[in-house]
Amino acid sequence: MARWEPGASDRLRAATLELFAEQGFERTTVAEIAARAGLTERTFFRYFTDKREVLFGDQTTFERAFTDPIAAAPADTGAFAVVVGALHAMADGFFTREARPLSAQRQTVIDADPALQERELLKLAGVARAMAGALRARGVPAATATLAAESGVTVFRVTFARWLGDPTDRGFGTILDEVVVELGALAG
Amino acid sequence: MARWEPGASDRLRAATLELFAEQGFERTTVAEIAARAGLTERTFFRYFTDKREVLFGDQTTFERAFTDPIAAAPADTGAFAVVVGALHAMADGFFTREARPLSAQRQTVIDADPALQERELLKLAGVARAMAGALRARGVPAATATLAAESGVTVFRVTFARWLGDPTDRGFGTILDEVVVELGALAG
Repeated sequence: MARWEPGASDRLRAATLELFAEQGFERTTVAEIAARAGLTERTFFRYFTDKREVLFGDQTTFERAFTDPIAAAPADTGAFAVVVGALHAMADGFFTREARPLSAQRQTVIDADPALQERELLKLAGVARAMAGALRARGVPAATATLAAESGVTVFRVTFARWLGDPTDRGFGTILDEVVVELGALAG
Repeated sequence: MARWEPGASDRLRAATLELFAEQGFERTTVAEIAARAGLTERTFFRYFTDKREVLFGDQTTFERAFTDPIAAAPADTGAFAVVVGALHAMADGFFTREARPLSAQRQTVIDADPALQERELLKLAGVARAMAGALRARGVPAATATLAAESGVTVFRVTFARWLGDPTDRGFGTILDEVVVELGALAG
């Protein structure tokens, strides 16, 4: 199957997800991943510390994709609006239409392995903590910062699941706005 | 057969939390817990399958404490109000003023051990899934059920943390109502 491969990192990511989907996370080796991508193990380790990192990426980088937009938001924006803005910024960078098939493949792998599900929960718990910290740094009181950040992660999780399953191929940002409106209607 | 010991379960729980607080979760053995409680290891295993279960209890029982009130709520109650009602019912049963010192001790143990934090995240993820299922069983559409259940867990987590740290000794239910109002104001 001929397709355009923009670089080693993306080829390794695609090969990893293919192999995890075919034979599971546990049974897949780095040697197999490198071979499938047509690269060496050495190249793999230039980009990733282990096969799990292909799924989860670097936590600090991931958290900054949420917290940098929070830090950059106009000073007079409300706490939850700042969080929603950060989710939009994150979506524009990461959750594009082109990214959806790989995201769906990744989710299937995670859904099949309880240890990976735990890791994903930890990853998002880290995001909530990081966003709460970024809100406090803007002067948001701690109690409000925690609630806004945790609710933001809830909105993110719900949006992400709907986006992956959306039959009409709507964008992440469109679904995000829909979930925010629904949360306002539910809780308001 | 180990014989029935009056109050054995509570004594074991208190001894477990004391030892975890003194020397950490990993380094504490069931033999030490039983000795501290003045009971045998055999009695311990009549009540708990392992030392971790003392902290986390039985997951099915825990989930039912949330889902039974959801199933019993009046038919015309909105999805999020049903969830908030379930959190109140849960609080009335488990998170009384008398329970706060033990809950705080338990939280300190969990906060000190990343593996226990993971377990706690999984426990609450299970609650969110169970509540969403209980809402769907009432006829709530799946998308709304997930959002209401996940938001309910967020409200629960935030309330729980505030309750443990509350300097004025307010009840869980009072703080819960406060968090629900704040969420409505944030998201509405």
